[in-house]
Amino acid sequence: MEQPAREPSPTIGELGETATLSRILPRLEPGDAALLGAGDDAAVVAARDGRFVVTTDLMVHGPDFRLAWSRPHDLGWKAAATNLTDVAAMGARPTALVVSIAAPPTTPVSLLEGIADGLRDALAALAPGAGVVGGDLSASSVLTIAVTAFGDLEGRAPVLRSGARPGDVLAHAGARGDAARGLRLLFAEARDAEGEPDAALADAVRARHPHLVGAQLAPSPPVGAGVVAARAGASAMLDVSDGLARDARRLAEASGVGLDFHRTVLGEDPMTALAGAEDHGLLATFPAGVVPPEPFDVIGAVTGDAGRLTLDGAPVDTSGWDPYSGWDGGAG
Amino acid sequence: MEQPAREPSPTIGELGETATLSRILPRLEPGDAALLGAGDDAAVVAARDGRFVVTTDLMVHGPDFRLAWSRPHDLGWKAAATNLTDVAAMGARPTALVVSIAAPPTTPVSLLEGIADGLRDALAALAPGAGVVGGDLSASSVLTIAVTAFGDLEGRAPVLRSGARPGDVLAHAGARGDAARGLRLLFAEARDAEGEPDAALADAVRARHPHLVGAQLAPSPPVGAGVVAARAGASAMLDVSDGLARDARRLAEASGVGLDFHRTVLGEDPMTALAGAEDHGLLATFPAGVVPPEPFDVIGAVTGDAGRLTLDGAPVDTSGWDPYSGWDGGAG
Repeated sequence: MEQPAREPSPTIGELGETATLSRILPRLEPGDAALLGAGDDAAVVAARDGRFVVTTDLMVHGPDFRLAWSRPHDLGWKAAATNLTDVAAMGARPTALVVSIAAPPTTPVSLLEGIADGLRDALAALAPGAGVVGGDLSASSVLTIAVTAFGDLEGRAPVLRSGARPGDVLAHAGARGDAARGLRLLFAEARDAEGEPDAALADAVRARHPHLVGAQLAPSPPVGAGVVAARAGASAMLDVSDGLARDARRLAEASGVGLDFHRTVLGEDPMTALAGAEDHGLLATFPAGVVPPEPFDVIGAVTGDAGRLTLDGAPVDTSGWDPYSGWDGGAG
Repeated sequence: MEQPAREPSPTIGELGETATLSRILPRLEPGDAALLGAGDDAAVVAARDGRFVVTTDLMVHGPDFRLAWSRPHDLGWKAAATNLTDVAAMGARPTALVVSIAAPPTTPVSLLEGIADGLRDALAALAPGAGVVGGDLSASSVLTIAVTAFGDLEGRAPVLRSGARPGDVLAHAGARGDAARGLRLLFAEARDAEGEPDAALADAVRARHPHLVGAQLAPSPPVGAGVVAARAGASAMLDVSDGLARDARRLAEASGVGLDFHRTVLGEDPMTALAGAEDHGLLATFPAGVVPPEPFDVIGAVTGDAGRLTLDGAPVDTSGWDPYSGWDGGAG
């Protein structure tokens, strides 16, 4: 007996805004903090201690992802994960997201459904209880995902970048270089003869290296470690999105301190650990005498040499990644 | 004596992210509710009654604006104004925005400076005390502005779409059809021989019709009227972004009521008043016996005829605007 042909997904343009939203919204949970979810002019979210933490980030097809490499579920997952980590880096518990998507009218609705599923699954895995309270759907020739994330400081002071003091312990939670290693694998092994991103080759390299390629396409940052660090008395903290060395320099400059990394804890490839972007780990400092709690590793020490970054005492180069200098205009 | 040549603006790609942000952020105020503004992983905003209102919206070059018609200042102004109105439509006082911009590397930094100035000036004019607490700058081939806006309910219940009851008074604050009239003028008189948007022609038609073209390009919705309506006991309220009739139908359906418009208050062109989009006025209902406060006009009555929209008793067509069916793919 023949299998019935699988119905192809209609496009957003065919379905229209209202019908498209009716297929996306049921896939999302509003979460514990939602006092009023999507459907009115605005949502209402609980802010139990009279404040809320807020961060926002855009993911753009081309500079930020390739549709041949990232599955729709990956896009939603990564958009949630990266914003949740910024909330965590303040020492806050993530409570809610709003998500806007701009997409070409020719986009299959199934792609948006996959993004929604990725958002939901990342929230459930990384920030249980947090949900999506609202959003917007717009037309654009470039697929663009805008996430704004909220968090609850639970009465604590936010953990800033500026609080590190000489003598503090330098600690890190999360991957160190894996996202960059995954991207390197994709560039090396998931492009066709013309150098264009290729979906079948990406599936193959992901099957061979699920951990590293997954770290790039759908990272699992240590979101819960943000609250753990704050409770343990972290003196400073930030999200490592542009590479450990480059973000460490931001912390050093904001705090007016120097940072010395211990080479032995950076693994067999310390340069990738220091320079690789997009790991979304948490870099934190703790006062002398405080043992950094799990899952933090001690990776160095805070020095009095303001603005100076060193690796076992030797200077570290922090030339980093700029979203405008790094994009060649390609998409795929 | 010759005038020194005016230095052309560098592009974002030439300046890079950090230097570009250093030219934008000083143009913005964090506002009264900012406990911690831009510069760390996330901002911290006051939510005095333990809740916050949140809404988000994307503006995309092509479907949502033409760069030949909208000045950079207009783009920032309109992005702020439209989101502030959604906050106001809940009966909340706007407190803060976060703003993400994705732009081509070839974008002059002066364009982003103009957007920032427009955001600041709209906040000062429409929601004094509210500010910009954070944002993101990304690369994209399409200029995209994502705004998320926050508001304070000041202890009141949010005014939903669903609270209208038969016998209530139907009232409206703001323009009725002016934004559509302005857009019609631009399409008729600000396109070149090939039908493409033209900047010089737009300046000329704006000089002849500053009120109507301004209503389209840089609207001044009655943001403060949201709190006024809530305090006066409004039973339902929403932002009129897709046209009075279409948004009235949303209110009618959410409330399970009918709405009858009074033709005499809709002016000489009641069809444009009912169908014209992008005015961003506030449509509200008030219990019988409550006189709608300034600046609301009584424009009709709430009936028991669930879901039925009428004009002096005759049915009204609410076929409206869909962001995917309405865009021809053009930009300009």
